[in-house]
Amino acid sequence: MDPRIREHAETIVDHSVDIEEGDRVVIQMPGEAEDLAVALHELCGERGAIPIWIAHSDRASRAYLRAGGEEYETPDHQQALYEETDAFIIARGGANITETSDVPPENNAAYRRAVKPVQEERLSKRWCLTQFPTSGHAQLAGMSTEGYENFVWDAVGLDWDAQREFQAQMVDHLDAASEIRIVAGEETDLTFSIEGNETLNDYGEKNLPGGEVFTAPVADSVDGTVFFDVPRYRQGREIDDVRLDFEDGEVVDYSAGRGEDLVGEILETDEGARRIGEFGVGMNRAIDQPTYNMLFDEKMGDTIHLAVGSAYEETVGEDNERNESAEHVDMIVDMSRDSKIELDGEIVQENGRFVFEDD
Amino acid sequence: MDPRIREHAETIVDHSVDIEEGDRVVIQMPGEAEDLAVALHELCGERGAIPIWIAHSDRASRAYLRAGGEEYETPDHQQALYEETDAFIIARGGANITETSDVPPENNAAYRRAVKPVQEERLSKRWCLTQFPTSGHAQLAGMSTEGYENFVWDAVGLDWDAQREFQAQMVDHLDAASEIRIVAGEETDLTFSIEGNETLNDYGEKNLPGGEVFTAPVADSVDGTVFFDVPRYRQGREIDDVRLDFEDGEVVDYSAGRGEDLVGEILETDEGARRIGEFGVGMNRAIDQPTYNMLFDEKMGDTIHLAVGSAYEETVGEDNERNESAEHVDMIVDMSRDSKIELDGEIVQENGRFVFEDD
Repeated sequence: MDPRIREHAETIVDHSVDIEEGDRVVIQMPGEAEDLAVALHELCGERGAIPIWIAHSDRASRAYLRAGGEEYETPDHQQALYEETDAFIIARGGANITETSDVPPENNAAYRRAVKPVQEERLSKRWCLTQFPTSGHAQLAGMSTEGYENFVWDAVGLDWDAQREFQAQMVDHLDAASEIRIVAGEETDLTFSIEGNETLNDYGEKNLPGGEVFTAPVADSVDGTVFFDVPRYRQGREIDDVRLDFEDGEVVDYSAGRGEDLVGEILETDEGARRIGEFGVGMNRAIDQPTYNMLFDEKMGDTIHLAVGSAYEETVGEDNERNESAEHVDMIVDMSRDSKIELDGEIVQENGRFVFEDD
Repeated sequence: MDPRIREHAETIVDHSVDIEEGDRVVIQMPGEAEDLAVALHELCGERGAIPIWIAHSDRASRAYLRAGGEEYETPDHQQALYEETDAFIIARGGANITETSDVPPENNAAYRRAVKPVQEERLSKRWCLTQFPTSGHAQLAGMSTEGYENFVWDAVGLDWDAQREFQAQMVDHLDAASEIRIVAGEETDLTFSIEGNETLNDYGEKNLPGGEVFTAPVADSVDGTVFFDVPRYRQGREIDDVRLDFEDGEVVDYSAGRGEDLVGEILETDEGARRIGEFGVGMNRAIDQPTYNMLFDEKMGDTIHLAVGSAYEETVGEDNERNESAEHVDMIVDMSRDSKIELDGEIVQENGRFVFEDD
């Protein structure tokens, strides 16, 4: 087995979810990730934790959801399992990332409603979402399988203590700031307030790789224009070069180089979908190219991202209103050149370089 | 997907465990059996049942059990899952059937003790154990993978209603009988009583393939000699051509062509291991050769089998004592030629032909 798989498992177990003796653990991943599951079982044995492996198969999900129609019951037995579980380790890594593309969206939506209590139970515990490198995800990224393996294991294999400290400097700057201005390229010039909101430091716990700091804009404070120049997929459709114009927090005009219809649909979902729920700064420089996988892309070094839609509760201060929406769609701006982030008029990052970095 | 996989799944769902709307189902099988798992998910969707797939990986088990030493806790979270489950569908089909051969037996034994409550919970529900044909099991059988696929799907694909009726005739004969005599080849001539015990008809419910009728001898009634001429593996070691001599129900002498030491170890386990706990008649003629897999071999047409060790509770009548033992080791006699089964002095099978069969 590639020694980086054992290292990946060690990072998950000892850093991300901090497995201890007696912990009941659910490992949820596809059969393609068996090597990682094996390494995790070995570590559970060493730590005195008790694992069970739930197979996640997109082929099985597709078959179930196509056959099941629009009515699903909550899986009580899975709920009972989750209630007795201390930590969840979830890895993506299916063979074909478009495996469920022909599941009727109504069926999918009905199923999601049925499993919501199960998801909420899981989210109330320690959990980590990570990636196992497979040919399918390599293909999505436009990379060779070996190149993608290197990419994934570089990104998850950071020195996370050092990364936490590096990112904490940006958290400190944001905590001290009120007004943020993002300038990039010819189009992006956006301002918003984060007054009273909380900035969180993601250093590889719930997401592995981690590598971002993130907060929520005050909902009606967003003004100006942002141009997202990093492509992404949304429900199997690509969107790219999305321009959003804001007034008083709300999108008043938009365009897109690709997927403009889809952007329109997203913004029409509900009122909250026309406002920004998240502002994040990608600081994981082992992630040096987009791979159409938001678990990686939003942490890409020298980028920022904004999400239209719901804000994370833990980022919204007591006195501020949380933006609510059924949507949460992250989009990314490359900040590596011709760009700056200003906090209360002071530059904190210019052309991808933070003021707190040594030469 | 091979259409026989969908048929296999239909037999499991509609015949073996009788899945109904709202049933909570656990599917437990290795990733190699994904095709079968997919077909089962489709059927669960069609029937309105709610499946969860537990991955059984011998590689993961090996890693866990080698690392975990000799102390294990009961997996409470798995227990909670099982308590809320209505039906279990379990398939064997790992890539390498000797995958766990280097797990220390002490670790294995400690783990088995820890998971005993979980197993008992499972056994108290509807369940089916079946086989997915993989290269590893084909290799064990000495067959090509395609040849083994044909073999497995023929054996599980019987008309089970017809098979149940065919076997019921033998159950009726045994129910009416007291004294059984088995004669085969030059060595086997064994008599025992089944007076007061129950004969069960296995037509593909808990085991798929099914295809046997079985009961328990009255423990101290077994006399004579039996020569088991069908080979089997036990804990990775082959035993073959085992001769057991009985007096008053107990083995008084034994020999074996292969694995004589192992036979001795089995018989020494406890007092019950020197007595017969099960007598079965294999009646599935789609199983026409041994494959070193007891799930199939004990149902092989024109064979009988006896197990030294524990008797199944449901086969032992109220007034008889149940043979108890930590062991239950089935061994098989070919009855296809030069053989007969007599019930109270009347032949019921001769050279593999039952008296109730038409010409």
